[in-house]
Amino acid sequence: MSPYPARLAALRAHLASAGLDGFVVPLTDEHMSEYVGSYAQRLAWLTGFQGSAGTAAVLADTAAIFTDGRYTLQVREQVSADDWAYVQVPDTDPALWLADHAAAGARIGYDPWLHPRGWVADTAAALADKGATLVAVAANPIDAIWHDRPAPSDARLLVHGNDVAGASSAGKRADIGDWLTGKGADAVILSALDSIAWTLNIRGGDVENTPVALAYAIVHANGETDLFVAEEKIDEAVRQHLGNAVRIRPRNDFAATLATFAGRRVVADPERAVAAIFDALEHGGATVLALRDPVVLAKAIKNPAEIAGHRAASARDGAALTRFLRWVEIECPKGGQTELSAAAQLLAFREATGLLLDSSFATISATGAHGASPHYRVTDESNAPILPGQLYLVDSGGQYADGTTDVTRVVPIGDPTAEMRDRFTRVLKGHIAIATAVFPDGTVGGQIDAFARRPLWEAGLDYGHGTGHGVGAYLSVHEGPQRIAQPNYPGGAALEPLRAGMMLSNEPGYYKAGDYGIRIENLVLIEPRHIPGGDPDRAMLAFETLTFAPIDRTLIDPALLTPAERAWLDAYHARVVEVIGPQLHDEDRTWLVAKCAPLP
Amino acid sequence: MSPYPARLAALRAHLASAGLDGFVVPLTDEHMSEYVGSYAQRLAWLTGFQGSAGTAAVLADTAAIFTDGRYTLQVREQVSADDWAYVQVPDTDPALWLADHAAAGARIGYDPWLHPRGWVADTAAALADKGATLVAVAANPIDAIWHDRPAPSDARLLVHGNDVAGASSAGKRADIGDWLTGKGADAVILSALDSIAWTLNIRGGDVENTPVALAYAIVHANGETDLFVAEEKIDEAVRQHLGNAVRIRPRNDFAATLATFAGRRVVADPERAVAAIFDALEHGGATVLALRDPVVLAKAIKNPAEIAGHRAASARDGAALTRFLRWVEIECPKGGQTELSAAAQLLAFREATGLLLDSSFATISATGAHGASPHYRVTDESNAPILPGQLYLVDSGGQYADGTTDVTRVVPIGDPTAEMRDRFTRVLKGHIAIATAVFPDGTVGGQIDAFARRPLWEAGLDYGHGTGHGVGAYLSVHEGPQRIAQPNYPGGAALEPLRAGMMLSNEPGYYKAGDYGIRIENLVLIEPRHIPGGDPDRAMLAFETLTFAPIDRTLIDPALLTPAERAWLDAYHARVVEVIGPQLHDEDRTWLVAKCAPLP
Repeated sequence: MSPYPARLAALRAHLASAGLDGFVVPLTDEHMSEYVGSYAQRLAWLTGFQGSAGTAAVLADTAAIFTDGRYTLQVREQVSADDWAYVQVPDTDPALWLADHAAAGARIGYDPWLHPRGWVADTAAALADKGATLVAVAANPIDAIWHDRPAPSDARLLVHGNDVAGASSAGKRADIGDWLTGKGADAVILSALDSIAWTLNIRGGDVENTPVALAYAIVHANGETDLFVAEEKIDEAVRQHLGNAVRIRPRNDFAATLATFAGRRVVADPERAVAAIFDALEHGGATVLALRDPVVLAKAIKNPAEIAGHRAASARDGAALTRFLRWVEIECPKGGQTELSAAAQLLAFREATGLLLDSSFATISATGAHGASPHYRVTDESNAPILPGQLYLVDSGGQYADGTTDVTRVVPIGDPTAEMRDRFTRVLKGHIAIATAVFPDGTVGGQIDAFARRPLWEAGLDYGHGTGHGVGAYLSVHEGPQRIAQPNYPGGAALEPLRAGMMLSNEPGYYKAGDYGIRIENLVLIEPRHIPGGDPDRAMLAFETLTFAPIDRTLIDPALLTPAERAWLDAYHARVVEVIGPQLHDEDRTWLVAKCAPLP
Repeated sequence: MSPYPARLAALRAHLASAGLDGFVVPLTDEHMSEYVGSYAQRLAWLTGFQGSAGTAAVLADTAAIFTDGRYTLQVREQVSADDWAYVQVPDTDPALWLADHAAAGARIGYDPWLHPRGWVADTAAALADKGATLVAVAANPIDAIWHDRPAPSDARLLVHGNDVAGASSAGKRADIGDWLTGKGADAVILSALDSIAWTLNIRGGDVENTPVALAYAIVHANGETDLFVAEEKIDEAVRQHLGNAVRIRPRNDFAATLATFAGRRVVADPERAVAAIFDALEHGGATVLALRDPVVLAKAIKNPAEIAGHRAASARDGAALTRFLRWVEIECPKGGQTELSAAAQLLAFREATGLLLDSSFATISATGAHGASPHYRVTDESNAPILPGQLYLVDSGGQYADGTTDVTRVVPIGDPTAEMRDRFTRVLKGHIAIATAVFPDGTVGGQIDAFARRPLWEAGLDYGHGTGHGVGAYLSVHEGPQRIAQPNYPGGAALEPLRAGMMLSNEPGYYKAGDYGIRIENLVLIEPRHIPGGDPDRAMLAFETLTFAPIDRTLIDPALLTPAERAWLDAYHARVVEVIGPQLHDEDRTWLVAKCAPLP
């Protein structure tokens, strides 16, 4: 029997006892993380939704779950329509929905440690129009009724060596201090877990798939830093690495410390620091400068050591993926394989490298119609057999000490249809259009996104997600600030200038509901590109593809490719053999060479 | 001797006597118009700058003029570096510059009838950081020292018939009333002159190149309207046309009327209504709803009568332009022609249609290096001979009762260089990429802008202006809200969804400073496009090109075109002959047919 109706009823009872008429449940943690520890999986606990982005809003007599276009199908499979209305963002959002559904005078609760201040202001304003109010709760009501809620992880911190980081923590903190001085500020609150990990050259194990530790940091203008973290996570090696300029303090001291900045100017990031942080700083008498966390851009621009590390990780990971693609081609047509068995096999190949530390996200192992959910996550309940006539889509990545990978390939089980080949070839044309794009320094991702879509648009098709996200260096597989997406992508990420050294995914797709999904994803690095004869005053950028694994040629209709596109694909496959070939043996290598032959 | 130093000195003396340390001089009028009547040409009077967009900021010991990338060269030719610093927006802006240059405690004046409220807030905040304040003046100090300032125009209003308008004013006002009711509002302030003209189906003659009358209107939820306009401009025909539901009131009563809405909800557009309007409404006790003027979108989506009218105007205008292009080809190589004589000849051909009411903007008649200023405006001082070896660029348009045109062509005088042909062909490829674009309903202009740039980017080149602007129906040649431009184009115009019925220009270019300029501009109409086999749930849009005139084939390097691009050009030229041919006689027609032959 589904546990979710009882949980919803318990929440409503708790809200009523607390004098609240409703509550908002986001999928994030106190750090505005995209992926969160199990202790913070409140949305999944309440609703059953397993996707990586969503929000619920609960009122006494109705409730809604808000998801984006990626989860249109998935939310309907995982969350009961008996109790929940499905609402697609950004067409509407919790604020608008609550304003429509809350009664005049209603008191709607929210947890100020789980929402940014802008959300609080917008939602409060929307509710005010209806005479309802938004009320900060002192303790999260889900936690009160979630009796077997997991404790936060106690994973140890690890040193991320200067050799792979490419810069010392002291140097990074000195740069942040210089930046603070330039802004006339005394300190900056770092609450984004990857910003803390990057700044201190540490990694952790508190969040699935992302090697970060639950912590806060306050970096002062002199570079000295307070790190708020559970002390038992820190061993002597980490303590030595951090040095005396990093003061280790209990994580629970953080909120109280925010009240000690009276008269000082403190930077907090309105997108990355929760409302409670701003509230505490202001109540304590600090002047808060709402500026972007300075680590965000510094971290996005990879240094030579990070790029070299990624190349090594990518070659290693591509070899493991290649072995898996051969396995799929041989084993799946025989029958008996499933999405779960395939995902396990892929993990085994990655683990066989001896260097895999984690997956960089839950592998999307999706066959047939499941592939049409771009962020499908296979479970015991959903697990489907991989059958002839299907397209099998696998989107996966590894966490290695030298890099974070993310790659998607599609394999036909048996002969693909002409429509599948047409769609795959259009997706490939879009992928190539991004891979070969040259653009002026200062171009934003929203400006080039449509390069990837045009071949689909010409056939009256499109895909409902962005084209590329930033990627961390042994950090988050989804990293800001840049993104290749529609210009109106939420949060302005697609309006962020693209800069040399940034890494992004290049992953156009096509999804036919109930039938199949296609996505071709490589990671790319932005590099300066000198063009002979070009305007000498106009610095140009271009992409270098970093991911190497064969793209299935039986899914390509060569007649749809231009000569330049064919040349790109053949050159790419030649590079795949060069980069991956030396890591493979015997039949795997022979297979790779055959799969990478020029198009007929 | 230049009059500008004395004017700047007089302004400074006046400011000192008024207790002000500085003043900001925008190029607009009380209606936030792009093109303004001569009475409002304060920026040109003060600085000599003849461009169509810019701002000046004057302090006691320094002054700056702010222009965008279109005017980088032009501002240096027209405005003295002795008195003025040149500042490019949006890299910096007057608020940032003033914050950098004003002394602590400085009082900087502004005219609240010439700035939107957002500008006032942003600038005041920037100055506050430096301890300076922004002060609204009761009367514009330029007007106090500009002794021969022209009086506002007294041109008569004219009826814009329902046959060309395609909808009655009563119907339009009823729609606005319904919209107000939906917003729970009592009235909307229309201060944009083209919104007023469109709503009332009237035209005027108060602003150069734009057939609008200086007026304000307040439309009430019942559709009744107060029109504030100089009464002597209205004859009996206009009075009859407006009817009893439109109350004609003196223009000078407008400000006082804003104070009479106590307790009522009034819509004003923060982008189009100046700060003084918001201030007066709020002081009078109204609740102001800051929403976009509802006419803006309605006006942008052309109805069938407006589209049919434009087709007729475009064919007529294209024939006049074609006669001119033949004239250029024959006469300019002989010598003796200049930018001014050519512009006069083009005007004569347009006037020979018998239907020209005005130019839609000052003709850009630019030869050689002048073409590299995208918005070059020829004057007696700048007038240059048209010489062999040059490219001659002409960007012009006509105002006809049935439509507003805007078209750019480039003609080589003698043989173009290989570089010119390469650049022209790349611009043409970009033009074709827009003309042939197919995209989902909801796509924004910022998403497709790069289609036009990619062929230039691939050569390390670009152009410093947007790719397309909206166009009015016998109204402003530059009309919002949509625009094809970089996503971060100021004001969000490139984030406005493109909709069927919108008209836009398609005008990529290339500019080589000191040498030549290239731009190919046609107008396009957005239309629904059914694509067989496409996703049935995905409505697609595409462009229909509306402008017809030959594109010089001697400037094209056919080797750079794809087969599809060649096919587009040949089909376009065939349509030019079909549409324009019947309007031409004898040698003009023979010439057109030869110019429109398929590419070799």
